[in-house]
Amino acid sequence: MTEEIGKQMYGWAADLFPICRSITGNGVRQTLTYIKNLLPNLKIYEVPSGTKAFDWEVPLEWNIRSAFIEDENGNKMVDFKNNNLHVVSYSEPIDKIIEFDELNSHLHSIPELPHAIPYIASYYKRTWGFCIADQQRKQLKQGKYHVFIDSDLKEGSLTCGELILKGRESKEILLSSYICHPSMGNNELSGPVVNVALAQFLSTLPNRRYTYRILFIPETIGAIVYLSQNLQVMKERTEAGFLLTCIGDSNNFSHIPTRLGHTLADRVVVKILEEYAPNYQTYSFLLRGSDQRQFCSAIVDLPVVSIMRSKPGTYLEYHTSLDNLEFIKAEELQKSYDLVKKCVELLEVNLKYKAVFPCEPKYDKRGLYPHVSEDKKARKTTYEQLLAFADGNLDLIDISHYIKKSTSECIESVKLLLKENLIRSPQ
Amino acid sequence: MTEEIGKQMYGWAADLFPICRSITGNGVRQTLTYIKNLLPNLKIYEVPSGTKAFDWEVPLEWNIRSAFIEDENGNKMVDFKNNNLHVVSYSEPIDKIIEFDELNSHLHSIPELPHAIPYIASYYKRTWGFCIADQQRKQLKQGKYHVFIDSDLKEGSLTCGELILKGRESKEILLSSYICHPSMGNNELSGPVVNVALAQFLSTLPNRRYTYRILFIPETIGAIVYLSQNLQVMKERTEAGFLLTCIGDSNNFSHIPTRLGHTLADRVVVKILEEYAPNYQTYSFLLRGSDQRQFCSAIVDLPVVSIMRSKPGTYLEYHTSLDNLEFIKAEELQKSYDLVKKCVELLEVNLKYKAVFPCEPKYDKRGLYPHVSEDKKARKTTYEQLLAFADGNLDLIDISHYIKKSTSECIESVKLLLKENLIRSPQ
Amino acid sequence: MTEEIGKQMYGWAADLFPICRSITGNGVRQTLTYIKNLLPNLKIYEVPSGTKAFDWEVPLEWNIRSAFIEDENGNKMVDFKNNNLHVVSYSEPIDKIIEFDELNSHLHSIPELPHAIPYIASYYKRTWGFCIADQQRKQLKQGKYHVFIDSDLKEGSLTCGELILKGRESKEILLSSYICHPSMGNNELSGPVVNVALAQFLSTLPNRRYTYRILFIPETIGAIVYLSQNLQVMKERTEAGFLLTCIGDSNNFSHIPTRLGHTLADRVVVKILEEYAPNYQTYSFLLRGSDQRQFCSAIVDLPVVSIMRSKPGTYLEYHTSLDNLEFIKAEELQKSYDLVKKCVELLEVNLKYKAVFPCEPKYDKRGLYPHVSEDKKARKTTYEQLLAFADGNLDLIDISHYIKKSTSECIESVKLLLKENLIRSPQ
Repeated sequence: MTEEIGKQMYGWAADLFPICRSITGNGVRQTLTYIKNLLPNLKIYEVPSGTKAFDWEVPLEWNIRSAFIEDENGNKMVDFKNNNLHVVSYSEPIDKIIEFDELNSHLHSIPELPHAIPYIASYYKRTWGFCIADQQRKQLKQGKYHVFIDSDLKEGSLTCGELILKGRESKEILLSSYICHPSMGNNELSGPVVNVALAQFLSTLPNRRYTYRILFIPETIGAIVYLSQNLQVMKERTEAGFLLTCIGDSNNFSHIPTRLGHTLADRVVVKILEEYAPNYQTYSFLLRGSDQRQFCSAIVDLPVVSIMRSKPGTYLEYHTSLDNLEFIKAEELQKSYDLVKKCVELLEVNLKYKAVFPCEPKYDKRGLYPHVSEDKKARKTTYEQLLAFADGNLDLIDISHYIKKSTSECIESVKLLLKENLIRSPQ
Repeated sequence: MTEEIGKQMYGWAADLFPICRSITGNGVRQTLTYIKNLLPNLKIYEVPSGTKAFDWEVPLEWNIRSAFIEDENGNKMVDFKNNNLHVVSYSEPIDKIIEFDELNSHLHSIPELPHAIPYIASYYKRTWGFCIADQQRKQLKQGKYHVFIDSDLKEGSLTCGELILKGRESKEILLSSYICHPSMGNNELSGPVVNVALAQFLSTLPNRRYTYRILFIPETIGAIVYLSQNLQVMKERTEAGFLLTCIGDSNNFSHIPTRLGHTLADRVVVKILEEYAPNYQTYSFLLRGSDQRQFCSAIVDLPVVSIMRSKPGTYLEYHTSLDNLEFIKAEELQKSYDLVKKCVELLEVNLKYKAVFPCEPKYDKRGLYPHVSEDKKARKTTYEQLLAFADGNLDLIDISHYIKKSTSECIESVKLLLKENLIRSPQ
Repeated sequence: MTEEIGKQMYGWAADLFPICRSITGNGVRQTLTYIKNLLPNLKIYEVPSGTKAFDWEVPLEWNIRSAFIEDENGNKMVDFKNNNLHVVSYSEPIDKIIEFDELNSHLHSIPELPHAIPYIASYYKRTWGFCIADQQRKQLKQGKYHVFIDSDLKEGSLTCGELILKGRESKEILLSSYICHPSMGNNELSGPVVNVALAQFLSTLPNRRYTYRILFIPETIGAIVYLSQNLQVMKERTEAGFLLTCIGDSNNFSHIPTRLGHTLADRVVVKILEEYAPNYQTYSFLLRGSDQRQFCSAIVDLPVVSIMRSKPGTYLEYHTSLDNLEFIKAEELQKSYDLVKKCVELLEVNLKYKAVFPCEPKYDKRGLYPHVSEDKKARKTTYEQLLAFADGNLDLIDISHYIKKSTSECIESVKLLLKENLIRSPQ
């Protein structure tokens, strides 16, 4: 049954793959509409071009219908229809016959990856351009070319998706992913589809402790706009946050800690990685990227950790057409989902439990303990050890550390001790 | 003269050895009466059966007069008169002729130690049983046996011994040992006899700083009952506590720290062990036993450390007839006494001293310092170093650490500096 | 131009070298008058003999005019005119014909350094004496000698030099050196001349942040007297202090931390040594000497670190005539000046800066950032990293540590970010 979720997530990624997304425009809207189909309570809203957000403002909205390069003989050398990476994101419209040399100055390719189309965007500097495989570029000859981009840059809006799931507590957990990349798999459909599956799981979680703030927003400008409208409440309420990015490939897990590295988000992620993915890699905060740059900036300073497989920028296929649907795998999406779910499940029970009786309880009354003092070793059960540390000051992650037992063993013991009325939750 | 104390302690252990102790009953009373002879101010008091203590209650009182197993020919195979370990502690009375197979199901022996009689108790599950050497058990044949135990389990009481020695301060040091084990030497007559000798030493200590709470109580239920009646005052006042157990054998010293390991009790024990018994062993708190389980439970949370030679359960002779008067030694009891005495003596002077003069004093006025600046090395005396750290915030253990001098050197310097009015005690 | 300062400092040392200084007297006055010529705002003041200072009092003032030892033939064997080290500092006057044996009991020499005249003082025990090369001592024969010391010990005063340079803040930095040693170079003209050069630099520093308290005082008694009159204000205001001693020889840098080693003075010195003099040596506070003994005593407890090349007492030439003008070098004085200046310059900008915008600023608006997302590595600039840590809680030394950039790179970034209004200083 759980393996089903991996396949589901992969299916969503396959459906969303062809859409031409950017930081604004109809591609984002289509993507969020698809997600709202999976998460009916998703709130989709628009922020108009020109809206101020700290040092930034929402740019013009970009949409594109078609684009190509045609040679003198009318052969379509490059066609947006075939791959939306072919056009530099936020390209201005153009319809012009130009010489090869001028064309060439608007082409982007990667000599080291002769078959790959690079992904290029130019959101804030007006230009136009095409991205092609270097192999193809080398075959272009001198002569005239018809370059055609049917795009527009107009007053419009930036589109965001937000799902708030209320819990017993107003304290929040943040789950964030971004939905502004065109046809690429790991970076970035892996983050959104894992985020959707987690949201579905959390929606049905009975007696949810935390309130969850689950975001599907454009990278950078989307995060900045969102923070400019929600900073105070997020600073007051957020206990831990996870940025999900590049989380569908086959590499080991990795994470980027918060600035100082001591938040609850750091503690839970390291604990779960240690237990379930011990070959994980820790990157320095100095190598942070994506929206952790905003969530963890000095003044925003939210406890948000990046959870990844391959870190963005560290794999060859990154930001090229090679980061496609073959590069991500259903079973890897499943593993990533499982791991983040473990983090969330641990947070849900990571309370500061307090023993009911000052001394040890009389275990044998409850059928919990051998009554004859025959065991010379007196090996102790997890629940005995846990009870000895349940002082109301230590949370479950602390106790797991002190008693050298896995969090899953600790969680089992908490259940037993709660059932036997030997510990109580705070308040 | 100090060696005398080791011999005295051994003599007390030899006197107390034959008594059949359990968690309640006349054996405990006889033992405490003997101790009161040595410590006239000892308060002995009774807690009636049925008294509630947190999750527990005081059990029925158990007393035994005689017990044996007789074969068909009237031969006494096993007789309580020979060794009180032969009867499972808290055995119900019985007087019956039974077949060998039924008898066998009530026998306890240790195949790995064919000559040893095991020590078994069954306080909270009604049963009866005999403990014998495995060698003897193998010689028992099929046939009928007369099993006879003249014991009773009646409303009665639990007996505790408590000695409070008032000091200048109301802050307390706890010294605890248990007096509920039948004829065994290390576990547990070593703890009580060292505790008695320390109590005698402390009784005569002039101008005692701390108040001492010195306990001789039955293990587990005694500690729980005692805590249930004294928890608040003990939590308010206890600065350090020592549980003395298995402290008469020839093994190196060992200790079990408190839960988090940072209390004054931990600091003083580690400091004294480092200086006087550097081959000591540190066990994890996760391996705690005896009454540290109660004193250090999450809510009681007293700063109590176990001081031991062999840790209970780690030596072959533990809980058998081999843990006898040969297994403990006068000179080892002496060493244990000396070490705990060092801990107490350090605590007595472990104040936060404060220098009288802001700068260095003029040592030469006091004949304390060479006045000609000839010494190129300027090696500093312990009292100079100590004075430079006597800021009123650091105690003597801290200072000893910072200035890299032994506590005995520091204590000498404190005496000198107090005499010269160069430091003062707090208040 | 900066190399000029080394030569200047050396020139001052050469001018001051011949003066016979002690803890009181005209030598100190002449020295301070010379320094006041270089630092016109220096305040020179006198503290009368007999003035109480904690456990001490200001001694009689000592002055000497001439001294010699003459043999029976009228040959001057030793003459104060040739080297003022020849007379034990604070020698009583004498004019007497004595036998060789009596003379010999008043002679000081160093067998291991046959050519060196030792430096000896006897401030608090009345005596007289001569210091000579051991080689010369061996040549003295039996016979009568005329010993003559024209000195006096009278009610007078102790002379101190203090320069206060007011800054924007009332918080202070202390720079201290001592001016009580006769003709020796490293110990101690190096400290005062570096201190003078730093004072000149600080006098002209525009918009000075800190207030600087710059002292030229006699060692020990001068520090104690000064502290007795300024302790409260110094404890309230001093954020960091540096004792400059033995800072003109060719050895690597060394320092002695404060008592517990965690003050701002410790942090800044270690940081600058790590960056500019990584072969430095750290001595234990237990080996402290000179006025750090007073500044860092338990109750005074100022954040004062010693900065040295060779630690006093660790070099052969120490406290002898071999510690002369050849033993110190202009270029080494320069290096020492440069290093302490770096410490001071870092302190001046070591603020807790705070980012202006909650999220990252839009760098490209300011021409600060590549706008096309082409750089796969996304290597970050120092100013980006610094901005991410500018939370108003961390000072620049902390941030330099976290972002793994040198303080000079950090200071450059601070300038840029201030200019672009992307960070602000506290208040």
